[in-house]
Amino acid sequence: MQDRLFVGLDVGGTTIKAAVVDDLGQPLSRVSLPTLPERGQEAGLNTMAEAVRAAIGAAGIKLDDVAAIGVATPGSMDLAAGLILDPPNLKPWRNVPVRQYISDTFRKPTAFQNDANAAAYGEFWVGAGKFYRSMVLFTLGTGVGGGIILEDRIIEGAHSHGGELGHIKIEITNGRPCGCGHRGCLEAYASATAVVQRTREALAARPGVSTLDADRMTSKDVFDAAAAGDALAAEIVDRTAFYLAVGASNAIHTVDPELVCFAGGMTAAGPEFLNLIGKYIHDVTFAWPAERVAVRYAVLGSDAGIIGAAGCGRLLVS
Amino acid sequence: MQDRLFVGLDVGGTTIKAAVVDDLGQPLSRVSLPTLPERGQEAGLNTMAEAVRAAIGAAGIKLDDVAAIGVATPGSMDLAAGLILDPPNLKPWRNVPVRQYISDTFRKPTAFQNDANAAAYGEFWVGAGKFYRSMVLFTLGTGVGGGIILEDRIIEGAHSHGGELGHIKIEITNGRPCGCGHRGCLEAYASATAVVQRTREALAARPGVSTLDADRMTSKDVFDAAAAGDALAAEIVDRTAFYLAVGASNAIHTVDPELVCFAGGMTAAGPEFLNLIGKYIHDVTFAWPAERVAVRYAVLGSDAGIIGAAGCGRLLVS
Repeated sequence: MQDRLFVGLDVGGTTIKAAVVDDLGQPLSRVSLPTLPERGQEAGLNTMAEAVRAAIGAAGIKLDDVAAIGVATPGSMDLAAGLILDPPNLKPWRNVPVRQYISDTFRKPTAFQNDANAAAYGEFWVGAGKFYRSMVLFTLGTGVGGGIILEDRIIEGAHSHGGELGHIKIEITNGRPCGCGHRGCLEAYASATAVVQRTREALAARPGVSTLDADRMTSKDVFDAAAAGDALAAEIVDRTAFYLAVGASNAIHTVDPELVCFAGGMTAAGPEFLNLIGKYIHDVTFAWPAERVAVRYAVLGSDAGIIGAAGCGRLLVS
Repeated sequence: MQDRLFVGLDVGGTTIKAAVVDDLGQPLSRVSLPTLPERGQEAGLNTMAEAVRAAIGAAGIKLDDVAAIGVATPGSMDLAAGLILDPPNLKPWRNVPVRQYISDTFRKPTAFQNDANAAAYGEFWVGAGKFYRSMVLFTLGTGVGGGIILEDRIIEGAHSHGGELGHIKIEITNGRPCGCGHRGCLEAYASATAVVQRTREALAARPGVSTLDADRMTSKDVFDAAAAGDALAAEIVDRTAFYLAVGASNAIHTVDPELVCFAGGMTAAGPEFLNLIGKYIHDVTFAWPAERVAVRYAVLGSDAGIIGAAGCGRLLVS
């Protein structure tokens, strides 16, 4: 079993990444090609196949050595049908039969998964969740992604919308507008984009109290300013931890995992931010699970997607 | 397989109900004994055993005919350990080894489950969820209970807190105080108790606009008044549907079930209320799952607990 190899493919709006991954979750190769979605979905499918071949070549193996392939793509998607529907960052793609195409091209068992779910599965398989039986992952970036794994099973949902944790509602009165068109979503409060937006609003409301520059500011700048003692920034960071804790609490009161895990750029803020999230989880959650749930950062970084996608392929043949 | 019989036991603060249930989920007997928790947990355990014997007697069968027993109790509990911890409505019980006691007394495989989870499983097995593969149930009573079943598996959680859907937070700013001690919980907005409380507040704020009597009013009175054209009551009912839709939406964006089901007294409000919830689910949820999820009332009524508990016993020997 240790000799089986898998290919993981992680399709993003900017790059298509692929890796050969062994049975212990170690990548043997990593390749990256530009997605260029504007060239259309036929070209996109060709690039995916090219990335698979390049990863196999870079690992010095043959297609025959590959037991299964896993493909992770951003939503929206129909997991049961193996289709990418119409993701905003893969425009103008529409109803792309990814699983069928990869499976036909390489004649291998092919798994198809949401990218956040795949990243969560990667962390669960060989990352921060390795020693836990259940896990909820929040990925903090431009948006807030989510993935839920319960006992080696990805909760994809009946309609491919399991783990869409960025869009649970945490505020019903005057909720912040979310990129999804709804209001009050966790993502509208706790994504990197929301951190910048909330900071801008605070700067406008209280001019002169912070050294932050509203016009050229990233979420990292906000976290750095907070660490350097900027009170306004510290308040933004504090509230961000609170919002994430409410999201975690809602996940705990729904699926009650052994581990709540946070991934993405914002985790560079370090252990203090994680501790703050943990403190607020205690404040807003039943004591019994709050005292027992583990709260950790992800450890696989940008490899989580390809490793998790490969792991999804591996699940098919396990 | 059709001949196997099970005993379901549903322990509440007021009564302990038991039934013999056949392999198709049909109760062959129903008995009910007063719980009298104030007499202590030893007496309580004896009453549970007595209820099991009475149900077996009432069904005209023998203990030998029973394949397994299932016990459902209110939280808090430690499902893995088989313990009732310290539920508010079973005071002064504390750390009661229910599963062990029933298993030792009757020498049968004994399942132990949260009462809301058991009721959800009953509906899933032979009730409103019979033809679905996954379901989230909200039970609307004094509080808001929840249960989640995915592919014949009850999501109990790593720390017995899966499906505590009454305590997901839907409001982070000035959230209504909840009986659990936290703020902004769904239960604080959408339980029968909350309906009455919100109506009282509305009556105090707008005296004379409604015929409702703030001093003697149940949630049913509020729903009846709404149906009879009382505008203030109609507004309360409308908001209640909205709050429940937000709860449902959060469950959809987390586990994305085939069916969202509502149980409890409030469902007497009829199809209009259910349609209102469905409309608001569409308003606050991604279109793909919102257009596909089924939204229904439960059908088993007060039998859901005993049938579900028996079903949990059946799962042990399936």
